[in-house]
Amino acid sequence: MSGLAVGFVGLGIMGRPMAGHILKAGFPLTVFNRTRERARELEASGARLAATPAEVARAADVIVVMVTDSADVEAVVAGSGGLAQGVRRGAVIVDMSTVAPATERRLAALLRERGADYLDAPVSGGDVGAKNATLAIMAGGEAAALERARPVLERLGKTITHCGPVGSGQLAKLCNQILVGVTLLGVSEAIAFARKSGLDPHVMLRAVESGAAGSWQLSNLGPRILKDDVAPGFMVDLMLKDLRLVSETAEAAGASLPATSVVERLFDAAREQGWGREGTQVLGRVVAGLEREGA
Amino acid sequence: MSGLAVGFVGLGIMGRPMAGHILKAGFPLTVFNRTRERARELEASGARLAATPAEVARAADVIVVMVTDSADVEAVVAGSGGLAQGVRRGAVIVDMSTVAPATERRLAALLRERGADYLDAPVSGGDVGAKNATLAIMAGGEAAALERARPVLERLGKTITHCGPVGSGQLAKLCNQILVGVTLLGVSEAIAFARKSGLDPHVMLRAVESGAAGSWQLSNLGPRILKDDVAPGFMVDLMLKDLRLVSETAEAAGASLPATSVVERLFDAAREQGWGREGTQVLGRVVAGLEREGA
Repeated sequence: MSGLAVGFVGLGIMGRPMAGHILKAGFPLTVFNRTRERARELEASGARLAATPAEVARAADVIVVMVTDSADVEAVVAGSGGLAQGVRRGAVIVDMSTVAPATERRLAALLRERGADYLDAPVSGGDVGAKNATLAIMAGGEAAALERARPVLERLGKTITHCGPVGSGQLAKLCNQILVGVTLLGVSEAIAFARKSGLDPHVMLRAVESGAAGSWQLSNLGPRILKDDVAPGFMVDLMLKDLRLVSETAEAAGASLPATSVVERLFDAAREQGWGREGTQVLGRVVAGLEREGA
Repeated sequence: MSGLAVGFVGLGIMGRPMAGHILKAGFPLTVFNRTRERARELEASGARLAATPAEVARAADVIVVMVTDSADVEAVVAGSGGLAQGVRRGAVIVDMSTVAPATERRLAALLRERGADYLDAPVSGGDVGAKNATLAIMAGGEAAALERARPVLERLGKTITHCGPVGSGQLAKLCNQILVGVTLLGVSEAIAFARKSGLDPHVMLRAVESGAAGSWQLSNLGPRILKDDVAPGFMVDLMLKDLRLVSETAEAAGASLPATSVVERLFDAAREQGWGREGTQVLGRVVAGLEREGA
């Protein structure tokens, strides 16, 4: 125990188990959530419930934010009653949401004026990783600030990679999503090809997965595509949100990502089919249903 | 030792070390190669040199073919002086080249008329796998014929997967190439995105490779892309040959493979740049050089 007082804002599917780990580790914890009911269980376990993010900030040395998108983080940090209004000098705010790198840089500058540090530290590993405290944490910001926050972050993930200045964590997370999306599209195309050409896709998977064709997506989501088991996992709507951040950021950086663009288009098609809340492996269903152009 | 007499046709980069393993295992071996000089070393080690594929067939119970494309296999098996003209009843021809599934089905039918069996058994693992006898072998054809050839194939690879009837081995190999190509494109796009957006791609690779973004391509070819080390590995020209088979087969089967099509187009661009004999990881260079549409 390091004697740090901790704050937590955003008690959704990811945030609740994460805040629970922090509380279990013995840190004094103050929490805020827009929907107060979601905080009741943590309150019963000893967390203090604050009326605003600013009130969380007044009580904490390290504050974790885990919300959905850039607008949420803006509101929580810079809005009326936001963290910036209550933050102590020398405190560290750690945003673990996946949002635009440019948003993080702007908020970090605002906090710096208040004498506080800001880290962007998005995660991969999903709700299972949040529950089991096995998240992979990709952090951007000052190394010294990361060290101050580390005792808290260590309770949430199995790896913490310092990626560079503020915004770098988000950039690494977006790279992760490019890889996840494109690799899954390859898996979907291989399975569609096997089925339509008369090859047993189970046999195919077994024949190729241990070699140069192998990937986490193939071994973990390939079998689910074969069963058409589309339970999430990681939801299409959230993947689309991340892919929008990729394309905005790529456009600003002058990067052309042809396969990632195809992935975004196909997940859009999945959402139009009403599959936005299914797991990303529903991409297999989308690819299987594609008509050949000109056919 | 099973007492099988073995034949081998096609002593290229892959074929020579493979024939060497068979000879070392103690099988009597008869070989044929269009360029006789390539057979001298094997001859010195005890292989018998035949003047035609038909002469190989007259001497062998199991005959391995390892050539470049569909036209080569056609000529070796069904051409004048080809294997079919000398093949013994009950012999097994194993084509380990990567060629069109339809070609294999046609040749298998021809051999069946002669009372012999035909397997298609393409491999993954490249020239390193051929040298170290660690190839992954994907076999199509009669199970009984595969059992007769197995003592020979076991000298060449570490895994032998029976994929289904003749042609299935080729279909599995094509699925392997879809996965390899699309996954590598994802790796190339993630690295280009990292570089252009100011994230250290070495850090990115380390941050994401052990999670859901992980793949053989990322861990093995990612670091080579970062060094712009384009030594093959597996050559662009050969990958393009395989991707042509994929698109022909997909078209016949009515499968639409959008990312695979992008991969084929980008490898075409690599060849046009004069990089046909570089390793497939040169795709990273192609993607890094893409201009944004409309930019």
